[in-house]
Formats: sequence, structure tokens, C-alpha cells
Amino acid sequence: MGRLRTLFAPETVAVVGATDREGAVGRAILENLEADFHGDVVPVNPNRDAVLGLECFPDVASAPSVDLSVIVVPPPIVLEAIRESAQAGVENVVVITAGFSETGSDGATRERELRDIAAEYDLNLVGPNSLGIMSTQTGMNATFGPENALEGSVSFMSQSGAFITAVLDWANEQGIGFRDVVSLGNKSVLDETDFVREWGADPETDVVIGYLEGIDRGDEFVDAAREVSDDTPVVLVKSGRTDAGAQAASSHTGAIAGTESAYEAGLEQAGVLRARSVQELFDWARALSGLPAPSSDGVAVVTNAGGPGVLTTDAVGDSTLEMASFTEDTLERFRETMPEEANIYNPIDVIGDADIERFEMALDIALSDPNVGSAVVVSAPTAVLEYDRLAEVVIERREEHDKPVVTSLMGGSRSRAAEDVLREFGIPNYFDPARAVSGLDALARYRAIRETQIDEPDTFDVDRDRARAILETARDRVDNRLGVEAMDLLEAYGIPTPTGEIVDDPADARQVAESIEGNVVLKIVSPDISHKSDIGGVRVGVSDEEVYDAYEDVVAKARNYQPDTTILGVQVQEMLDLEGSTETIIGMNRDPQFGPLLLFGLGGIFVEILEDTSLRVAPIGESEARAMVDEIQAAPLLRGARGRTPADVDSVVESIQRLSQLVTDFPAILELDVNPLVVGPEGVQAIDLRLTVDTENL
Amino acid sequence: MGRLRTLFAPETVAVVGATDREGAVGRAILENLEADFHGDVVPVNPNRDAVLGLECFPDVASAPSVDLSVIVVPPPIVLEAIRESAQAGVENVVVITAGFSETGSDGATRERELRDIAAEYDLNLVGPNSLGIMSTQTGMNATFGPENALEGSVSFMSQSGAFITAVLDWANEQGIGFRDVVSLGNKSVLDETDFVREWGADPETDVVIGYLEGIDRGDEFVDAAREVSDDTPVVLVKSGRTDAGAQAASSHTGAIAGTESAYEAGLEQAGVLRARSVQELFDWARALSGLPAPSSDGVAVVTNAGGPGVLTTDAVGDSTLEMASFTEDTLERFRETMPEEANIYNPIDVIGDADIERFEMALDIALSDPNVGSAVVVSAPTAVLEYDRLAEVVIERREEHDKPVVTSLMGGSRSRAAEDVLREFGIPNYFDPARAVSGLDALARYRAIRETQIDEPDTFDVDRDRARAILETARDRVDNRLGVEAMDLLEAYGIPTPTGEIVDDPADARQVAESIEGNVVLKIVSPDISHKSDIGGVRVGVSDEEVYDAYEDVVAKARNYQPDTTILGVQVQEMLDLEGSTETIIGMNRDPQFGPLLLFGLGGIFVEILEDTSLRVAPIGESEARAMVDEIQAAPLLRGARGRTPADVDSVVESIQRLSQLVTDFPAILELDVNPLVVGPEGVQAIDLRLTVDTENL
Repeated sequence: MGRLRTLFAPETVAVVGATDREGAVGRAILENLEADFHGDVVPVNPNRDAVLGLECFPDVASAPSVDLSVIVVPPPIVLEAIRESAQAGVENVVVITAGFSETGSDGATRERELRDIAAEYDLNLVGPNSLGIMSTQTGMNATFGPENALEGSVSFMSQSGAFITAVLDWANEQGIGFRDVVSLGNKSVLDETDFVREWGADPETDVVIGYLEGIDRGDEFVDAAREVSDDTPVVLVKSGRTDAGAQAASSHTGAIAGTESAYEAGLEQAGVLRARSVQELFDWARALSGLPAPSSDGVAVVTNAGGPGVLTTDAVGDSTLEMASFTEDTLERFRETMPEEANIYNPIDVIGDADIERFEMALDIALSDPNVGSAVVVSAPTAVLEYDRLAEVVIERREEHDKPVVTSLMGGSRSRAAEDVLREFGIPNYFDPARAVSGLDALARYRAIRETQIDEPDTFDVDRDRARAILETARDRVDNRLGVEAMDLLEAYGIPTPTGEIVDDPADARQVAESIEGNVVLKIVSPDISHKSDIGGVRVGVSDEEVYDAYEDVVAKARNYQPDTTILGVQVQEMLDLEGSTETIIGMNRDPQFGPLLLFGLGGIFVEILEDTSLRVAPIGESEARAMVDEIQAAPLLRGARGRTPADVDSVVESIQRLSQLVTDFPAILELDVNPLVVGPEGVQAIDLRLTVDTENL
Repeated sequence: MGRLRTLFAPETVAVVGATDREGAVGRAILENLEADFHGDVVPVNPNRDAVLGLECFPDVASAPSVDLSVIVVPPPIVLEAIRESAQAGVENVVVITAGFSETGSDGATRERELRDIAAEYDLNLVGPNSLGIMSTQTGMNATFGPENALEGSVSFMSQSGAFITAVLDWANEQGIGFRDVVSLGNKSVLDETDFVREWGADPETDVVIGYLEGIDRGDEFVDAAREVSDDTPVVLVKSGRTDAGAQAASSHTGAIAGTESAYEAGLEQAGVLRARSVQELFDWARALSGLPAPSSDGVAVVTNAGGPGVLTTDAVGDSTLEMASFTEDTLERFRETMPEEANIYNPIDVIGDADIERFEMALDIALSDPNVGSAVVVSAPTAVLEYDRLAEVVIERREEHDKPVVTSLMGGSRSRAAEDVLREFGIPNYFDPARAVSGLDALARYRAIRETQIDEPDTFDVDRDRARAILETARDRVDNRLGVEAMDLLEAYGIPTPTGEIVDDPADARQVAESIEGNVVLKIVSPDISHKSDIGGVRVGVSDEEVYDAYEDVVAKARNYQPDTTILGVQVQEMLDLEGSTETIIGMNRDPQFGPLLLFGLGGIFVEILEDTSLRVAPIGESEARAMVDEIQAAPLLRGARGRTPADVDSVVESIQRLSQLVTDFPAILELDVNPLVVGPEGVQAIDLRLTVDTENL
């Protein structure tokens, strides 16, 4: 049990601001509680002796021991009401009243005060600006919505109260039940992270679902959801996926949205199944709450109709699942029992004249096959098939084999009764077989999430003091940006860089060049020039003899480009043999919600035009770093596609991990790019670097 | 009216093989016809005098003038029955009987004979192995399915009879109606192309939909559908999209499936809206049959609930549509009429206490805005809102402004009555706003299809005789393959190639090299060696003096690789300055269904690893060729991204058109690849060529 259990299972609920005035929210909540709540309901209102026939108390302190206060008083006296409840020893508070940060600066001030009071008394506070909460176990409907939820095992949170109202109306018709329901409101105190944790600890919650427009503490949410999803699937619609949607979400909640790419990476790392639409949210939730996970990815499709069988097979092909190959033994059993015209290879077509017995036999044989992890039963209506009986048979076989089965008993009114029976036993039925398969797919993807071991970040032996010293040089910069002159930062964290030095004199340049074997590269070092090559600030393949002139040349080019440019010097660098090497990019951007977001991609067009990159929230361990390299589309290039010598991928993986450690150690690094990080068969070399430092936070 | 109108609107239908035996198909069809058909039904059966109380005739010739024969006699006498009908002057035949090509070689022989008879008498023949046909205008249900269709304007064909049964059962419950319904069966005579043409010519058909597992005459289908879709949208599920699905489809219909990429390209060119699932098929059909196309892509979202408004905005972001920006005038009207807390920017949030009047006002103002092409009304249930009245208001405003409006009046039972009313007026309502938007998107995409002008292929002045002569040299090859030795083929069709010659003597090589300015490239020419560079068969940057040795070298390398290799000679070619150039690929593969499929992509990894290619069915005109170049992901590279000099894209476009002409002129070219076609700022050069020729067809 989590610490929020009494919030959902109080014995006594006070409605602070209860009233019998028609149409008032304080009346609606009291009525809703009175209707189904197993515990006691106490109206609180200093101006009344009784409300709706219940004894009314002037304040919470004088009411009998209250576990939860639902506060609906007008905005000016909300804070006082909260404090009064807290002083009376109430730990759980739901603030229905609106008029806080969503309304402007006065409201925002009030919300800060609310947060202070909650912190002072360590309150479990939902809202403000919430529709309320429900918990079907105790019949508690502490909302002002028109419907109570049916009992079920899905716990549901929503950043939109209206969405809850809409969903409940629909779910009650569909026979979909819930465990707990929370309207998050402004999430001033308790937020999605708290409820994911709570429901993860609740044995009666089988699935956590949510509608969110933003996640406030992204990094903590990732940790919490990742842990919870070992036992309990978490399915979310995080809206504002698109640019238009993000703009709408931000005007709705007033929150600054993190970037979609950060949410995508963060939710993936959190083990969250992210639904794109309301339909997906509930299709997945239904499968996850009613069925066991498949032990393998092989799906058997059993149908009496070829066309719908092919449609179902396409849906399996679209999913992470695959069509099962039957064992010889299974095929033999099919041959013995099915008519000659039947197709006994997957999809199994028991053909149009199949009766219940043949369907049952086919499903039984299929589910007995060790290569079959799950099944889809698809049927067109025929004269010889009663859907009600087919439903019973499917339920029996499913339970006997303990493998997930979904159905598409296609049809209209004739499917309804069967659908109701199937639903009772956790089996979702849809007219469109693709939706049935989508539910199975959610089960399989959830199994994969559970099976994924997330390794702890490695801790490399690094020179943290040296790194700090380099970062501190950013204090001298107007814009807090550093470039190649900070390459030692990478060295300090064990990311290899070519031999070289920055000099401010052509003679020194020559001296450095002579100390380096072979020809060298000269680059202008200036915080004002970001595209050095474009202005002629780079000279490649310079021999010792040419160094002096080359030095003068790149400096002249820089002055030419911008007369008052700050020139920090010229970098004289070992010239790498780039033949057989690949340019990659590793970088980091700090996201307001999720923190340091690591990026990996191949250089040039791959990142800039094809946007072929992978992202992770730092810190990450080796397996995630390796996944970053593996999941870009161009990954085969590194592994040696087209006759290339394979690159030293391990060294890229290690560089990403070292970068992860660097940006975790120094929150002051706001963004950082190593571009390119050249990787060849012998390892990596960081050629160029740019970063921005928050010098206030060093 | 198309030539198949009497098939769907006969005055007299004969059921050949009619019987009153319980459970017989011949009885089911007779009963179905008797139930609703406005015309006359004539049972034909030599063994009966009457069937189900109707006078029964021994053959079609003795029956009163028959317009359509539905044949359900056993397989051995089907052909005779068809011939008898034909001889009696019947032009339209539906063959229900199964046991043809779907059952093996005897059946296949019988089907060929059936096709011959149909050709001999010029019959409009549906089937065999068909569930039958329906036409609601005359109440005709000439199928043995359990349900007749409701009246509507959607004409529906299906390669699966069971799919029709399933859909009708469901559609009747949903109130979705049809115009004509055809179970295509084995498509021995009439196929999808015929019905698309027919329904395109039928003013009562608003939308053509279909479930297909294969398209037999892909090229003709593309032409027919393209023409039809100028007036009538065509929406198809073509199953077998995935590898697993294609395998299942081929075992279901016994047809050899064309490749998915050919279907994708062909259906796109045909102007077909391709649905991925049953749900999409009907969601799109509903919108297309009930609503006008939006005149612009701007969508207004009007809602009483922030969260669902954001979800809807995301769905718009996912679609080809965009959120409309309101004019200042519109915003002013909103300011005057909406409460202060309302959001008057799109999505318009009229907030939770909105009554019908406020909703109506907001919708009216939004639809009056010239930037708004369509609208979505999204609502959560509230105490002040009656959905029935909201539905009426939406219908009125929609009709007044004549812009498409879809709805998501979210909820359960309270939405049903409103949904029914909305449906009657062509407005689809869904619980999930994303489905409502998907319907609007189908309307917008259909408008785009109508607006797209497909230009005629240009005819370039080419040397066809020279090309033929080169292709004929393939006769001398065991495998009918040609390589660089056939480069003149490209020259004959005006695709530039570098200066060069194939020689079989080192002295000749030197002579050719001397005639070419600068260094040259030497390449081994052998039908046995496809990766010349890999075996050392290419030498680049060879000076005149080095030519002799280089010649010997590449020949030695080839012999080393394979002692008995056929060596046609050595190509001595002008060396191109590839700096600033990009390698592209143009090619063609002949698809069994669609014919010549043109391919364009960037060379190397872009095609091989990233699969970044575009495809079209030839012949194509300039705009399609240009679209091929524009639609690859890496296209910005050609247009001059990252500071490159833009390539001469026009010359690539022209090369694709010339290739289109070549492969159209010579159906004997089975496949052809120009790889690379190098493109720089000054134009293109084809560097290498491979092709396979069907020498029998030259």
C-alpha cells in the first residue's frame, strides 16, 4: 500500500463548502458521495445546521474524525479552509475550487501559498482546479461529475476533468470499470509521479492509465514509472505531440511544454506504453487488464473467413508480433480434424461451414502448439454459427491454456451479447480485427518492457577537478559559450581528442607542428565564428614549412569575416586519417522537464537533413548507450555495411556513457555538442566541441 | 450510365438452380430476391414445376425475358448453364457456384472454359465463387447472405464474400447504407477495374469502396481509377500489405501477388485513398459520402473541454490538415460574444458552462471565417448541454455554411440519439475525436487528388532503331543480361553518358585514352562480374602512359577472380570530376500487375541502407518525374543543402522521363538500372548500366 491509500479509502469524508443550493458544485459533490460511498460523509459549512438532511458542522475541527477534506469554498477562503483541515489533523485534501495559476498572476500567488501550506503540514493535496477523485472499492465519488465509475482494476488520472466526464459516460455504457480515478487539476502538490507510484504499490490496480498534457518532474517520473512498470503496465496519452497540439496544450494548462522529442525519449525509457489516441488508450488498457502476457510472439489466427483472416494477418504484420509457425505435430492434428478445404497453415481457415465444434477444435489445437503465444479468433456471421456459443468456447479454451486470446466476431447486433460475455472474462472483441491485434500487441510490448534489464550507469575514473576548471573559464565569456579551446574537458572525461595545442603566435604554431608527426590541421579559435570552414578558418594537410603562412592566413580570414572578432588563437592539431572513418555526433541538450537529453547520430546530412538521431535522458548505462547507436537508421554503416571495415562501435558506446557522466556531474552544462566525433576501426576522436555553461550554477 | 447498369437494375432475374430444399444456396438466393426485389424473380430448374410458390421453368430460354441469370447449379453443369443463358439472350450472369481455380487444376481448366464462353457471348459475368450482388435501388439481393443492405450512396466490392456478410451485419446496425454491392469471387471476367469504371459513371454512387487481395490488370486499373476519382472518391483496403499478409492472401486467393511497393505506387497514382483497416475504410467512406470537400485546409475546433480540444488538435497535426488562423474580424466577434475565460484562438474553448446558444454562436463565427475550410465540434457531457439539441445546431450551421463539419460528442448512451440524427445528415460522430478528424482528412486528401493535374508523358525525339539493335545483342547472352557495353542504349534515348569506348586490346585502349582529354577510367566489361570495383576491375585516374599496364591489370584481376570468366573487353572512359556531384540511381522493374515500375533514389547507402526511394508506374509525365525527385528524404541534398551548389535537378527529371519512354517503348526490357547516374550543377552522366531483356518479346 502506498502512502496515498487513505486518500482513496477514507472512512470519513468532509465536504468543506457543502450546500443544498441547486446547481452548486458543493451540492453535486455531496450528492455523489451520499449516493454510493460506503463510509461517512460530513458537510462542513458555518452557515448551515444541516445540508441535504445531514448534520452540518461549522468547521472540520468540530466534525468527527475526518480522513479526507474535499474543498469547494470560494477562492478567497480556500487557503484558510485548507489550513483549518490540516490543523484538525486531516492529511488528505482535494481542492475543487478553481481560480489559481490558470487564471493569472493573482491566482499564481495564491497557488504558491497553497503549496506552502501543503508542505508545512505534509498534506496529500489533489488540485486545485480538480473535478475530484473516485475510488470504486469504497464507492467513493468525490467529484462533481454526473457519473460514478464502475468497479474495475484500471486506475486512471487525467489532467483534464472534462476528459474524465466524457470517458466515464462512455465507459459505463461499454462496461469498462475503474479502480481509482483522479482529476489532477493544476497538480500543485500531488502529480502524475505520485499517482504512478501509488498505483504501482496497489495490488488491486492492474493497469495505470492517464491523460497528460505535461509531466512536471520528468526525471523522477521516468524513475517511478520504470520501477512500477515491472509489475504494472502504464499507458498514457501525452497530448501536445504535434506542434499544433503542443501550442494548444500550453494555452490550456499554461505550462511550458517540454519538447516532444524529450517526452518521446523519456516515456520510452520510463517503460510507458504511449497511446496516440483515446481509442488506443482504452483498447490497450482493456487487453492489459483482462489478459495475461503472451509467453512468446507467435500468434495463431483462427477464422472461418479468408478475407478477414488476411486482414488480421496484416495487422499482425504491422505489430511487434509475428504469425506463429506450427509444429509438425500441430499440422498433423489439423490434418486429422479439419476438412480438406481448410487452410491449416496460419491463418487457420476453418472455412465458412464451420460449426462451434470445429472452431473449438481448431482453437484448442492452435493454443496447444508451443510456438503459439496468443491467438485471435476472427469470424464472419454464418447460418451455422451462434456467436454466444462461440464466445463461451473461446473463454473456456483461453482459460484452459492460459494464453491471451482476443476476438473479432464481426457483425452488428448479433455480436453484442457475445461481446458482453467476452468482456466479462477479459476478452476484448472488436468489429475491426486490427483493433483486437493492437490489444495483443500492447500485451507483447509490455512483456518486452518487463524483460528489459536497465543497467546502472558505469562510473568511469575521470578528472572532475580539471573539468570544473575548464568550465569555469566560461565565466570570462560574454555568452558563456566554449569551443575547441575546451577540448581538455573531453580528455578529462576520457573521450579521446587528437594531439594538438592552441597557440597565439605563428612561431609557436610551427613548434607545435614540429612536435606532431606528419602534416597538421590549423583552425581558428574564436567564440564569434561557429562555422570555421565556411569562412576559410580551417587549413588541412599543412606541412611544418607551411605552418607559419597558414597561421597568418586563417587569422586574416577571420578578421576579414568580421574585423572586431575575438580571436583566442589558432589550434594546431594532429591530422587524422579519415579514410575508412565515419563522422558521428554526440551531444546533450538540457530539457526543462527531463533534464539532460543525450543525442547520437551520424554527422552531416544524417542529422541535418534526415534527422536520423537517437535520444536518451541521462544518466544511462551501457545497454542504453548501445541501443542509441543501434537504433539509428544508418547504424549498418558503422557495423561495416557495403564492404566497409566495421567501426569500433564499443568506443562510441563508451564515449556516450562518458558524456552521460559528464553532463550528470555538471548540471551547469546547458548544452554540449561533439561534432564530429570521428569513429574508425581503431576507436574515436573528438574533433570539435561546443558547449554552453550556466556559470551561476558551477 | 455504364454498360453494367442492367446487371444492377434488371427487370427480371432468373435463379438457375433454384430449389426449396432447406439450407440450399439456391433457396437462400430465391428467398432473398423474393423478399425485397422490385422486379420479377424466375426460378429455373428442370426438375420442379414450382419453387416456393413461384412457377419454375425448365430452362432460361423458356422463361419470360430474363436480364440477369444467377447461377447456383453444381460445378459439373455450370458451363452448360451459362451457355444456355447466353443463348437465351441473357447478357448478365452471376456465378455463385464454387469449385473453379480456387480448387486446383481441374477447376482452373473449368474456369478457362468459363472465360471463353463469356468472351464468346460478351457476357457481363460476376464470379464464379461469388456470394452474389446487391443493388438497393431495386431492392435486389441476389446473394445467399443473411442480410440485405440499407439504401445509400456507397458502392462496395469485395474479393471476400465473408467480408461482405460481416460488413452488412455491422453496417445495418450502424445505419450505414449502400448503392451496389458486389462479391467479386474469382474475378474470372468482371473485376475491380470494371466496377470502378461502372460506378464512376453512375451518378447515384458517391463513393466507391472495396476490399481487394490483388489487382489483376494493374495498369488499366490505374487509368480507370484515376479517371473515376475526378468525380468519385475510391477508397480501398488492399490486403497483403505486410509480408505475412501477402503470404496469407496468396494462399487465400491462389493469386500471385504483386509486390507491395508496386501496389503502393500504383494505388497512389490511381488517386485511390488506401485504408489500412476496416475502421479506416468506413470512417473515410462515411465522411466522403456525407460531406462536401473543404475548400481549404484550415480546420476550426470548437469545444467545451480543454483536454479533448488538445487531443483533437494533435489529430489535426497528424493529418494533412492544419489548424486555421482566424482573421482579426473573427477574433473580434469572439471577444464580443464569448466569456472572458474562453479561449478564442483555435481550438476555441467555449468552456464547461457553455449552453447550446454559445456553442452555436462559436461554430457560426468559426465557419464564417474565410480561413476555415472545415470544423470539428468536440464536447464533453455537461449538465447544461443536451446532445440532441447540439446535434441539430451543428446540422443547421453546417448546411448554412456548406462546409464539412464532423463531431465528437463524447459519451455513452447520451450520445446515441444525437449520433443517429447527425448520421442522417451525413455527419459522422465518434467518441474518439481522432476518428472524426480522420474523416475530414480523407475529404481534404480527396480534394487534393481531384486538384492534381496528371500531365501526359512527353515524347522525346529518340533513336528507337538503334536502341532495338542494342537490345537485340542480348540474344547472344546465355542470361539475357547486358551491362556497360549497352551504354549506347541510353545515348539513343538521350540520357548522357561519358565519352568512352570498349576495346579488347591494350593498344586500342591507349588510342582511345589519347583521344580523351585528361586522365581516364578503365573498367572490365564482363557479364559475369557485377561488382567490378570489388574485384579490382576498375582503375581510376589513369594517364595515357599508364593505360597499357592498367588494361593488363584489370584483365588479370578478372581472370584471377574467375578463370573462365567471359571478358567482353575493357571500357576506357572519360574521367568525370565528381567533386560537387551526387550519385543517384534511376531504374525500372517490371511488376506482374502494374508493369514498368520506375525507381529513383540517391546512390549507395541511401538506397541500400536507408531505402530512401520513390516509385512510379511508367509512363509518367514531367510533374510525376519531378515528384519522384522531390519526395525522397534526401532531396534537399540535390537542391543545395549545406552550402552545396544545387544540382541540375531538371536534367534528372528529364532522365527519368526518358527512361520512362524507353521502358514503355520496349516491354522486352524486364529490368534496368542506371547506377550511378551522377548529377552535378551542369547536368547528369550515366556511369554504369545493367539490364535484362526478354529476347522472345523483342
